[in-house]
Amino acid sequence: MPEYPPLLSVRDVKALGAAGGQAFASLLVVRRFATKTAGNGNPFLSLELGDRSGSFSCTVFGDSPVFDLLRSAGEGAIVRVEGKIDYYQGKLSPRLAKASVVEESKLTDPAMVSNLVENSPEDPKGLKAELAGFVASVARPELRAAVQAVFDELGEVFLTAPAALGMHHAYRHGLLEHTVRMARAAQALCPLYPEVDRDLAMAGVLLHDTGKAIEYEGTLAPRRSRRGLLQGHVVLGYQLVRKAGMKARLDAELLERLEHIVLSHQGQLEWGAAVMAATPEAVLVSMIDNLDAKMGMVQRALRQAAAGEEFSERLPGLETALLTRPPPPGTGATAGSG
Amino acid sequence: MPEYPPLLSVRDVKALGAAGGQAFASLLVVRRFATKTAGNGNPFLSLELGDRSGSFSCTVFGDSPVFDLLRSAGEGAIVRVEGKIDYYQGKLSPRLAKASVVEESKLTDPAMVSNLVENSPEDPKGLKAELAGFVASVARPELRAAVQAVFDELGEVFLTAPAALGMHHAYRHGLLEHTVRMARAAQALCPLYPEVDRDLAMAGVLLHDTGKAIEYEGTLAPRRSRRGLLQGHVVLGYQLVRKAGMKARLDAELLERLEHIVLSHQGQLEWGAAVMAATPEAVLVSMIDNLDAKMGMVQRALRQAAAGEEFSERLPGLETALLTRPPPPGTGATAGSG
Amino acid sequence: MPEYPPLLSVRDVKALGAAGGQAFASLLVVRRFATKTAGNGNPFLSLELGDRSGSFSCTVFGDSPVFDLLRSAGEGAIVRVEGKIDYYQGKLSPRLAKASVVEESKLTDPAMVSNLVENSPEDPKGLKAELAGFVASVARPELRAAVQAVFDELGEVFLTAPAALGMHHAYRHGLLEHTVRMARAAQALCPLYPEVDRDLAMAGVLLHDTGKAIEYEGTLAPRRSRRGLLQGHVVLGYQLVRKAGMKARLDAELLERLEHIVLSHQGQLEWGAAVMAATPEAVLVSMIDNLDAKMGMVQRALRQAAAGEEFSERLPGLETALLTRPPPPGTGATAGSG
Amino acid sequence: MPEYPPLLSVRDVKALGAAGGQAFASLLVVRRFATKTAGNGNPFLSLELGDRSGSFSCTVFGDSPVFDLLRSAGEGAIVRVEGKIDYYQGKLSPRLAKASVVEESKLTDPAMVSNLVENSPEDPKGLKAELAGFVASVARPELRAAVQAVFDELGEVFLTAPAALGMHHAYRHGLLEHTVRMARAAQALCPLYPEVDRDLAMAGVLLHDTGKAIEYEGTLAPRRSRRGLLQGHVVLGYQLVRKAGMKARLDAELLERLEHIVLSHQGQLEWGAAVMAATPEAVLVSMIDNLDAKMGMVQRALRQAAAGEEFSERLPGLETALLTRPPPPGTGATAGSG
Amino acid sequence: MPEYPPLLSVRDVKALGAAGGQAFASLLVVRRFATKTAGNGNPFLSLELGDRSGSFSCTVFGDSPVFDLLRSAGEGAIVRVEGKIDYYQGKLSPRLAKASVVEESKLTDPAMVSNLVENSPEDPKGLKAELAGFVASVARPELRAAVQAVFDELGEVFLTAPAALGMHHAYRHGLLEHTVRMARAAQALCPLYPEVDRDLAMAGVLLHDTGKAIEYEGTLAPRRSRRGLLQGHVVLGYQLVRKAGMKARLDAELLERLEHIVLSHQGQLEWGAAVMAATPEAVLVSMIDNLDAKMGMVQRALRQAAAGEEFSERLPGLETALLTRPPPPGTGATAGSG
Amino acid sequence: MPEYPPLLSVRDVKALGAAGGQAFASLLVVRRFATKTAGNGNPFLSLELGDRSGSFSCTVFGDSPVFDLLRSAGEGAIVRVEGKIDYYQGKLSPRLAKASVVEESKLTDPAMVSNLVENSPEDPKGLKAELAGFVASVARPELRAAVQAVFDELGEVFLTAPAALGMHHAYRHGLLEHTVRMARAAQALCPLYPEVDRDLAMAGVLLHDTGKAIEYEGTLAPRRSRRGLLQGHVVLGYQLVRKAGMKARLDAELLERLEHIVLSHQGQLEWGAAVMAATPEAVLVSMIDNLDAKMGMVQRALRQAAAGEEFSERLPGLETALLTRPPPPGTGATAGSG
Repeated sequence: MPEYPPLLSVRDVKALGAAGGQAFASLLVVRRFATKTAGNGNPFLSLELGDRSGSFSCTVFGDSPVFDLLRSAGEGAIVRVEGKIDYYQGKLSPRLAKASVVEESKLTDPAMVSNLVENSPEDPKGLKAELAGFVASVARPELRAAVQAVFDELGEVFLTAPAALGMHHAYRHGLLEHTVRMARAAQALCPLYPEVDRDLAMAGVLLHDTGKAIEYEGTLAPRRSRRGLLQGHVVLGYQLVRKAGMKARLDAELLERLEHIVLSHQGQLEWGAAVMAATPEAVLVSMIDNLDAKMGMVQRALRQAAAGEEFSERLPGLETALLTRPPPPGTGATAGSG
Repeated sequence: MPEYPPLLSVRDVKALGAAGGQAFASLLVVRRFATKTAGNGNPFLSLELGDRSGSFSCTVFGDSPVFDLLRSAGEGAIVRVEGKIDYYQGKLSPRLAKASVVEESKLTDPAMVSNLVENSPEDPKGLKAELAGFVASVARPELRAAVQAVFDELGEVFLTAPAALGMHHAYRHGLLEHTVRMARAAQALCPLYPEVDRDLAMAGVLLHDTGKAIEYEGTLAPRRSRRGLLQGHVVLGYQLVRKAGMKARLDAELLERLEHIVLSHQGQLEWGAAVMAATPEAVLVSMIDNLDAKMGMVQRALRQAAAGEEFSERLPGLETALLTRPPPPGTGATAGSG
Repeated sequence: MPEYPPLLSVRDVKALGAAGGQAFASLLVVRRFATKTAGNGNPFLSLELGDRSGSFSCTVFGDSPVFDLLRSAGEGAIVRVEGKIDYYQGKLSPRLAKASVVEESKLTDPAMVSNLVENSPEDPKGLKAELAGFVASVARPELRAAVQAVFDELGEVFLTAPAALGMHHAYRHGLLEHTVRMARAAQALCPLYPEVDRDLAMAGVLLHDTGKAIEYEGTLAPRRSRRGLLQGHVVLGYQLVRKAGMKARLDAELLERLEHIVLSHQGQLEWGAAVMAATPEAVLVSMIDNLDAKMGMVQRALRQAAAGEEFSERLPGLETALLTRPPPPGTGATAGSG
Repeated sequence: MPEYPPLLSVRDVKALGAAGGQAFASLLVVRRFATKTAGNGNPFLSLELGDRSGSFSCTVFGDSPVFDLLRSAGEGAIVRVEGKIDYYQGKLSPRLAKASVVEESKLTDPAMVSNLVENSPEDPKGLKAELAGFVASVARPELRAAVQAVFDELGEVFLTAPAALGMHHAYRHGLLEHTVRMARAAQALCPLYPEVDRDLAMAGVLLHDTGKAIEYEGTLAPRRSRRGLLQGHVVLGYQLVRKAGMKARLDAELLERLEHIVLSHQGQLEWGAAVMAATPEAVLVSMIDNLDAKMGMVQRALRQAAAGEEFSERLPGLETALLTRPPPPGTGATAGSG
Repeated sequence: MPEYPPLLSVRDVKALGAAGGQAFASLLVVRRFATKTAGNGNPFLSLELGDRSGSFSCTVFGDSPVFDLLRSAGEGAIVRVEGKIDYYQGKLSPRLAKASVVEESKLTDPAMVSNLVENSPEDPKGLKAELAGFVASVARPELRAAVQAVFDELGEVFLTAPAALGMHHAYRHGLLEHTVRMARAAQALCPLYPEVDRDLAMAGVLLHDTGKAIEYEGTLAPRRSRRGLLQGHVVLGYQLVRKAGMKARLDAELLERLEHIVLSHQGQLEWGAAVMAATPEAVLVSMIDNLDAKMGMVQRALRQAAAGEEFSERLPGLETALLTRPPPPGTGATAGSG
Repeated sequence: MPEYPPLLSVRDVKALGAAGGQAFASLLVVRRFATKTAGNGNPFLSLELGDRSGSFSCTVFGDSPVFDLLRSAGEGAIVRVEGKIDYYQGKLSPRLAKASVVEESKLTDPAMVSNLVENSPEDPKGLKAELAGFVASVARPELRAAVQAVFDELGEVFLTAPAALGMHHAYRHGLLEHTVRMARAAQALCPLYPEVDRDLAMAGVLLHDTGKAIEYEGTLAPRRSRRGLLQGHVVLGYQLVRKAGMKARLDAELLERLEHIVLSHQGQLEWGAAVMAATPEAVLVSMIDNLDAKMGMVQRALRQAAAGEEFSERLPGLETALLTRPPPPGTGATAGSG
């Protein structure tokens, strides 16, 4: 993919200043896309284009050289654009002269996708392998088969989906990361709570949020899907689990308990749980979910911490700002085994 | 302690039937104690006496042979009583003929205390040793010294106090059990959250609820103390930690972070937190606290599960009834390492 | 069924007075049933027996002549008992001498069931016929077939189930009555809201609460079932509808919209809705549900209104007492066609 | 009204582009109006001018040729303005050269008012006639007279007022539309709830929101009036009804029940009800109010649905986005009478 | 009023013991009164009789010698009864042999009323005089006249009514006491808040709760009246003020502001305010109301403090128990003028 | 401090118009300060500069003549700047040519500070003297010494701190003003509530919010401090009081009660109270705090009332708009002594 001039990020483009007229080229995602009709009856496109560093709005009229291409690209597409800086109503609104759609699979450099959207801080391949290991650790064969069947049905979609649109792990691969992190926590905690059936709890952890792979659609510009709005991830996940459990001929009571974990994991009815958790496994999974969601907010705030600032911005999910500097080491360390 | 006739539990006494007049002897705790004045100006005692199997009210007038002894015994005392079954207003209200106070330390048989009040299901001695191990695992010497200083100040009181009056771990040694269980969970989870300073989180876990050893008083008939009502366990614990930290010459910032864990561990302002958790350690401790509190409710409901019942009573803390039967084993177990 | 002496209601039995020893016979429902073990290791039954006029507790020991029969009867059974008045702890607690189980189908006089439990004020047969008419009014054949399939699967259970355990239409046939009343309201309102697809709304009304036929079990002493506690009536109804829709080869989008009505009809997440209503039909059904629930509380309070009282007791569902006397006629009526 | 150049909507004006200097003419409403004083002591006007397609801010200094005219026009006036495009701080802020006030009654073309503000989708004349029919349908003469007296007192104001500033039916004639729609629903539902006095319920529906005709003032730029802020529409409506009822010599108990419907129709104290609904009529009216408010939100979202979008924006009153496409017809329609 | 045997309080009667059969005489209030019909068609009375020390239920059948007298007495009547102790279902339920109604005005000894119901701790005559003084202190003649007109209309009812049924000042003369206490506070605070019109605030304080004299009926056994249930004290007070203000020809704006104080004094919509306080006077009155309500709870808890107890029972209105012992004097007092 | 050209306020600067290029000079506060790194690795400053009339953002690159000076000034500094008007992205973003830091103590004219930030409407010197008088009025010597010790420790910081960042008394000297106003109210109210220990209540009023002097830092651009975020003003104030009380050898119970006032003054747990008020003094102080906070919102809205507007903007703390015009005088004033 020959590139002249070099690609600029949105932040770089905005830094070119207010004078207008400078040429630029960028690799961007179509975040919002709407076809509208002007007063004179002519159609035009109202777009939001962006990358990880920011975004801008852009109106493309029917006589633009890029109108046809962008109209066919649609929301979530990756586009390489060239144009000149312009402002409308005081906001950056470039005039585009060239545009081409780029397939995500053609982006040879992984860093390119990282520049386009936020990604999980952990390597997706490692997470995927670790997920497979947790699936394999489910001891009852039919239960393991049911878990595997859900992931087989979802395929790649599960691996790239976000875990949320705005609260925690709200980025590409976030659902995978959150699921694996919860599995690690369940692995660590189950020996401490012997009244919990480890096998069932682990299966519940792995499957609890699988409905989100359907609730959200698009990985570069994710939004709530039609099924997400009409059914919600709790019921979508329940249905996935039910189908897989019946296919795997899972014992009826085990299936009922597994479905119950999915139905109750949100913890409170007003947060979307269909019922309150009523088995030891369901209580544990809902509490680990809450714990890892909060810790995910902490981790993201630490990653994004500005160099000179002691505290993060106020984080809605934590209802406070987070102290982002590590504690001091103390004067020495002569004991301790933990 | 020679005993004729044999000691009956409150449940046994109630089972003697409504006819009245039967003689009985019991070992009981004075759960409620009030001195009142009758219309004729004479004082009388209004008592609630009970053991683990139940309780009954009992009025003792000034001319009773046990008046003086019971008046001096006071709330929380262990008393051995003899008397005859009687009813007042349709409720069991025995006439007592003999009474003697028994020192808790004189109860030779541990089962006797178990019959009087609910106890932690774990052996207190083992818990105490495990607690000492967690204290020793704190690597920074001053931090470890501060933790130790709080336990030194509280002494036995911490070891027998309940963790609550009504919600979770609300029984003798419950505070010790809850603290050790949380330490186990922190030990298990810290490797998964490297952004958390393990040392500080462990110290925070060990100390977070120490104010409860002052907030509640009495271990056989615990109630909120004057300081508990006027300051609350969050501030009482903060003050314990502050004093111990200054005595141990703990680094000022470490002490501030340790105090913050105590001040924020309740998780929400309306649950009594002074501030919202604003460090990685404080977020983790507050989430583990919530997790172990909920699992403690599960464990107690399982211990108390009636033989023939599939579900427990509705549990206020879980907002549902708990399914108390274990899941079925499934058809086989050919894989799994977890 | 020859009867000597004549059957007394619980209210009649209680009116026999406190002296004890009087003989009586009653037809009652076993409302609560538990097998317990006494201190001496012997089993005994702890029962609550009642009819529409009240109830009493009753302990039956292993040496009682009715022990075996009542142990096998279980919760919800109808029993004919004879015995003598007795009191325990000041409460009526008769000693039973004879007992026999009576099949509900053998109760020749409909008034007998009415005396046992509260019933819908409308004739169940008429309601059943009206329900069939509403099913037949669904115009799209596959949609009508799907609705019919759900009722075919549930059979009699739907016709006798209550609509709730405590709030509205909480009595035998209450679910049928509530469903038919809502269908009448939908029939009346749909012409006023042409943006609502009448066919889909009617199907949604008929099916929205069908999960309650599974959530509650027992019609004489109903309680929440295992599936009710683990899944809730919203998900149970969704599953019934989904299965029936697929069997009827209902168009996928129609099925999705029908499922959405069931999933959203509770109106608020904290009231148990899986998602908020997001189609015109779902909004209308959830509002009619709320309206008829409130009017059902009004109707029941009017039926139970005491003769001399202007206001009912405070009704929790209305958060006030209800004025139960009709308004005055006014001075004349010379206009109006309404 | 001769017009050169042709009148442009605000959207058209904004579409003229950022260059500035272009001449334009528009017919607009003065939405916000404030007289302020500059640092040099000179007065200037801070205005918001707009039509249905949008609005812009505009500062008019004392030396402007339109200063005197606009100062006397005030909030809610209709003005015809001419001027040139200009920008201030990046926002459209035209310089006005000519302005004239236009009486609403002089707008010969109904479409002109429609362009200025949002209107009810139903024809106001038809609604007015239908309202009169509902008034006439009230059978008790004094009750009918009381209803009529309220509308006589309010006159035109009731017919053009909005039903809200932001939630439902928040547009010109919205109050009339909402009232008539509720009357239709009451008409349809009363036969189903015979415990409801139809006459009283209909009178209550017609009058329940009449206080809003006083709570809001202005129909082109409505806002909360002084009396609206100090008393609220519930009490204002109660006072209107009380006065009219006494004038019509309405039976005291009927009047009390009619007043109660007005006082309780908001449904919950926190939504502004003075008391909870405590008569069958009041419960029904409050439920119909809630139902039609929600359906009004649905109807407006359907009217405003963008061509290419499956879902509306998130609607605060429904707490979700609305699916705006109609359901598919299905494969046939061979049955159904409903 | 000759009395043999001496009158016993309910507490005394209950202290006579469970044997039954003892004769007694008491002066009591009919707290609850209902005429019911037995299974045999005969009417009987279901009563609750009590005094300040307690109460008991009592069933009076048609063949009782006191049936006719008690039937005509009705709720709130004072009755002198004689009878014998009896128990029903384990609860005191005496058989009455004689009964006579006593007019409240015939109770020569003020202590007798004090024994029947709880009274304000302040002397009602003094409070009444102080109220008159505050009325006289309103400077604007028409405003003063309006205030006076409301008290003239209410007469004695205002002087004896409680200020609540359960929260604060919930006893005879409690409304008068609460009003005077608030007037004292307003008197003390107005000089500190010069932006508050003292005259208007004082009139608002005096009138704010006058609707409660109608909302509650009966001073010996107060309950919510029909008008209280259908309109609530806020609207009832508003109507009293409006009528009095128009009679006194009060300036329209002053009347509107006075009405606003009444309509907003509850402070929050969910506590029953019609609107939020929107004038300086209304904000101050609502805050003083809240302050004196809370202090009234404190005062009552102190009056009822048990001799040996450091803390009161938990007070729902304060959400805690109150420390009822005074603080220690300290070591000396050498300064201070305040 | 010679000044050419004359200093302009931010409002004046913005009024210079959009053309750009005009020279100006201003005295401003650095409200927000951040050092960032550009894409080319060079540092730049991102500032917000403002005075009481408004603010603007400003980017200062490393090659700017004012870079070094502003970098060392930091947040909260007062700077005298000169430059030329410029716009970036449609917002005022001047280019600065000169800058100098001005010590607050060097501002000879008090009006200058008033132009920079909002101040208490009362004279700080008078408030300070009045505070000293209230301290002196505390009668118990050790209690008075404890109060004095807290103010001695805080020094000037207490005198200039705001009482809040956004709700009430949120301006320079606001904490002093709020404290003195509450002391006046306590002085006025204590004689009316004799159950309140005046001495203790006054000490509690004076100290209740002293933790805010630490919770907020900076008086020209105040923000929450590290200790404010980690401990909150309730605990900070408690610690101040505890330390001072022990230093003054205050009686242990008096100190406990004084600490309790501080710990409970926020009134509700969700507003930050550590415990609910449980002594008469604590209840009174929390209610006066609430009262003066609300009246402070009223006073500020009246001070800021726009000339031509009858109502203020909607005030979040009052949940309504405030009527800002005084009530009419009425027709005369012939009585009243109040």
